Amino acid sequence: MCDTCGCHISDDTSSKIVEVHQSLLAANQEQADKNREHIEAMGAVAINLISSPGSGKTTLLEHTLDRIGRNMRIGVIEGDIETERDADRIRKKGVPVVQLTTGGACHLDAPLVHKGLHALEHQSEDGKFDLVFIENVGNLVCPATFDLGEHERIILVSVPEGSDKPAKYPTTFHGANTFMITKTDLLSYFDFSVEEAKNEALRLNPDLRIMEVGAPAGLGMDQWISYLEELVAAH
Amino acid sequence: MCDTCGCHISDDTSSKIVEVHQSLLAANQEQADKNREHIEAMGAVAINLISSPGSGKTTLLEHTLDRIGRNMRIGVIEGDIETERDADRIRKKGVPVVQLTTGGACHLDAPLVHKGLHALEHQSEDGKFDLVFIENVGNLVCPATFDLGEHERIILVSVPEGSDKPAKYPTTFHGANTFMITKTDLLSYFDFSVEEAKNEALRLNPDLRIMEVGAPAGLGMDQWISYLEELVAAH
Repeated sequence: MCDTCGCHISDDTSSKIVEVHQSLLAANQEQADKNREHIEAMGAVAINLISSPGSGKTTLLEHTLDRIGRNMRIGVIEGDIETERDADRIRKKGVPVVQLTTGGACHLDAPLVHKGLHALEHQSEDGKFDLVFIENVGNLVCPATFDLGEHERIILVSVPEGSDKPAKYPTTFHGANTFMITKTDLLSYFDFSVEEAKNEALRLNPDLRIMEVGAPAGLGMDQWISYLEELVAAH
Repeated sequence: MCDTCGCHISDDTSSKIVEVHQSLLAANQEQADKNREHIEAMGAVAINLISSPGSGKTTLLEHTLDRIGRNMRIGVIEGDIETERDADRIRKKGVPVVQLTTGGACHLDAPLVHKGLHALEHQSEDGKFDLVFIENVGNLVCPATFDLGEHERIILVSVPEGSDKPAKYPTTFHGANTFMITKTDLLSYFDFSVEEAKNEALRLNPDLRIMEVGAPAGLGMDQWISYLEELVAAH
């Protein structure tokens, strides 16, 4: 029926894609390593939060800042495609915050975060922080390939999204330190198996730390705050 | 503090990225136009479903097939990064289904869908269909740039994700025909403003048709099924 649909990407384009992708990732890695040194010179440990849109990254940060925003020097870098909405929400908590907009790209990259770090420093008297949160663009795929210079990478999946998500988005779990199941206060309304989600995530990455949080209801927040305090103390 | 972090993408890499991206999109558009002819030769109209992971695309399809899977000749192309899970769910409904796995890519493209169309035809005696659903990879960003040859493009946002999503992911809404709010049976549990979501979506694209659906509870399903019947009748 369809002898004429033989449109394919040419070998030439294909090899150019590989070449460009490799240069991009190499440049990103070089900057990410410098970002890590930069963050350490600021006295801080940095956490990269990755999830689908609406999994509760900003809500987690709001409730975290309510609990420890006055005891620790916390800075937040917000990544979005457009709008200042997330930064506006965090700004109300009274901590330094920088909004980075990617203008279309589905992930933050290290050069952009480098600019964010400088902007964050300008909001602090001595440029020193204990903890820097980097909230990535809402996307469960693209951010996985781009090291931003963070020390810890947390993948969030919310209960309404379904417990099949680790198996369906494996790459994202390979490079993470922690898998956080969010909105656990909604478990009774959804067909979500905590067991399935945990097992699949650990099959992909046996070293993952696993947390379960329902931030607005306070579920699992004590464990989360202890983890942050230990992380800061260890650096 | 950070005079040495001057790592940037070189102008040479930058211009290669633009060049490669343009060739890719041109090749995709050429194939998408052929796919559209191909789908019409199959007698069908095709719908491209785009959303974040876990917004309810597969669940919507399951309930749609329960209602009209026996009255219409429906084929389903499932797009995922890995796993056959979604195709397995749809296969139980007794309709032809093809699983496409992208092996890492965050969206389907027209050359891959072309292969899917041929595989779908082989599951039908005469290669004819009324309706072809293409369920894209769960992602609210990447699929927006890739025409697959569909006739209608539907963007789904579920109530648990939040009503700020149209404003935060504008590109995705520009190219759509329909904006569907899903999981509306959960409205009383979430701080989701249907009004805000609708207004923001219409501000981005005034021609959008808007639907509200809670598929498992049957909410809005009559309107959805009528829309599909009219779509098929008009082609």
